Amino acid sequence: MTYCVGIKVNDGLVFASDSRTNAGVDRFSIFRKMFVFDHPGNRIYVLVTAGNLSITQSVVSLLQRQSSDTSADHDLMKAQSMFAAARIVGRAMRDVQERDGRAIKAEGVDHDASIIFGGQVGDGRTRLYQIYTPGNFVEATDDTPYFQIGEVKYGKPVLDRIITPETSLIDAAKCALISFDSTMRSNLSVGPPIDVLLYNADSLKIGHRACLDADDPYFSALSNRWGASLNKAFQDIDPPNWSL
Amino acid sequence: MTYCVGIKVNDGLVFASDSRTNAGVDRFSIFRKMFVFDHPGNRIYVLVTAGNLSITQSVVSLLQRQSSDTSADHDLMKAQSMFAAARIVGRAMRDVQERDGRAIKAEGVDHDASIIFGGQVGDGRTRLYQIYTPGNFVEATDDTPYFQIGEVKYGKPVLDRIITPETSLIDAAKCALISFDSTMRSNLSVGPPIDVLLYNADSLKIGHRACLDADDPYFSALSNRWGASLNKAFQDIDPPNWSL
Repeated sequence: MTYCVGIKVNDGLVFASDSRTNAGVDRFSIFRKMFVFDHPGNRIYVLVTAGNLSITQSVVSLLQRQSSDTSADHDLMKAQSMFAAARIVGRAMRDVQERDGRAIKAEGVDHDASIIFGGQVGDGRTRLYQIYTPGNFVEATDDTPYFQIGEVKYGKPVLDRIITPETSLIDAAKCALISFDSTMRSNLSVGPPIDVLLYNADSLKIGHRACLDADDPYFSALSNRWGASLNKAFQDIDPPNWSL
Repeated sequence: MTYCVGIKVNDGLVFASDSRTNAGVDRFSIFRKMFVFDHPGNRIYVLVTAGNLSITQSVVSLLQRQSSDTSADHDLMKAQSMFAAARIVGRAMRDVQERDGRAIKAEGVDHDASIIFGGQVGDGRTRLYQIYTPGNFVEATDDTPYFQIGEVKYGKPVLDRIITPETSLIDAAKCALISFDSTMRSNLSVGPPIDVLLYNADSLKIGHRACLDADDPYFSALSNRWGASLNKAFQDIDPPNWSL
């Protein structure tokens, strides 16, 4: 399983991804699921991926290979806008699905894959997309300023309660880590290290990149503190006034 | 969709169930999913149900009809123990699945159903079971003192953090309501009224039964307070010390 989140706030973007993949419960491996394509000062793209690993790896390889393409229709580094870039990623997904998807499905294996794709091109807006199995995509808005892929449910309530477009970038990152903590406690197949990337809007370069191991001091402290705070929050609520 | 939870603590049992069912997004209805079979002073059983509504309603009807049976093999009111009672419920599930399950499946409709079943018989132990589609079942233990069925993920983190066998009955009920609040915020197809039942161990009668509407003052206050406390808990955690 996988858990990835992408958050778009006014100050920029936050991406986080776990590193555990499994094919059955007895084959766990570590694969990174975060990929950066950047040309500092000119553009930056970040992808986090979930779903069938052979599909998502092929999509990323195709995008890397196409970066030596001469056509702006395929080359992320020549795309005129984030929208054009999202169409390139969507097309790569569609190409790989057309090539491999049916054969995978015929074996009874899930060929679904999804990508959270965000970044900024030149003086265009910072944008965040979710790209689906068929290569189509939707964009994050002020009403729905984040996307999750993979094991999405356990970590959703805290995002729903905290994230707004006004949330600061560092708070958005903190919220993403709490969302990971909730997910990893409930689903063992989501696991560290956690890759985190922060992007300051209009900087056109990576803001901060971290890779948090299971014993990372900040993440451990956050996990303990959050657990203690939830317990305290629980105790602070009056019980129902029911006769028993 | 449905959300139901059953919790077993040393002091007794808590059951909670929502009342919304849907067949497609445009056909929502209210159906109660909590059923009590009791003979005060002698025994009490509580069922909460999820999954295919025609299946779970038939199971409950079968159990009600069988209560006029002469055999202890089918009659919940004559069962010698909670284990024997769980086998009766499991058998009713299996009977209904054998009769209707295949035809439902042939139409491409999900025939899965599950039941949380708990209670106490005479001077036996208070016990809590989860009964699956095939009629088999597992029992809650001190390590896993609760079961959830239906839309289980959003409301799981708070149960994992709070519930232990030592949790008081009223705190377990409060935790169940917080778990419902998280679930209903994230999945609109889980909806009020929420049926709640508390059972004090060894009392052999209903402890408290409540039906909470959307505008129930206690539930509204709990929801607001929990949201505010989570925000405060979030603010109380130091952000990561990352340069941006």
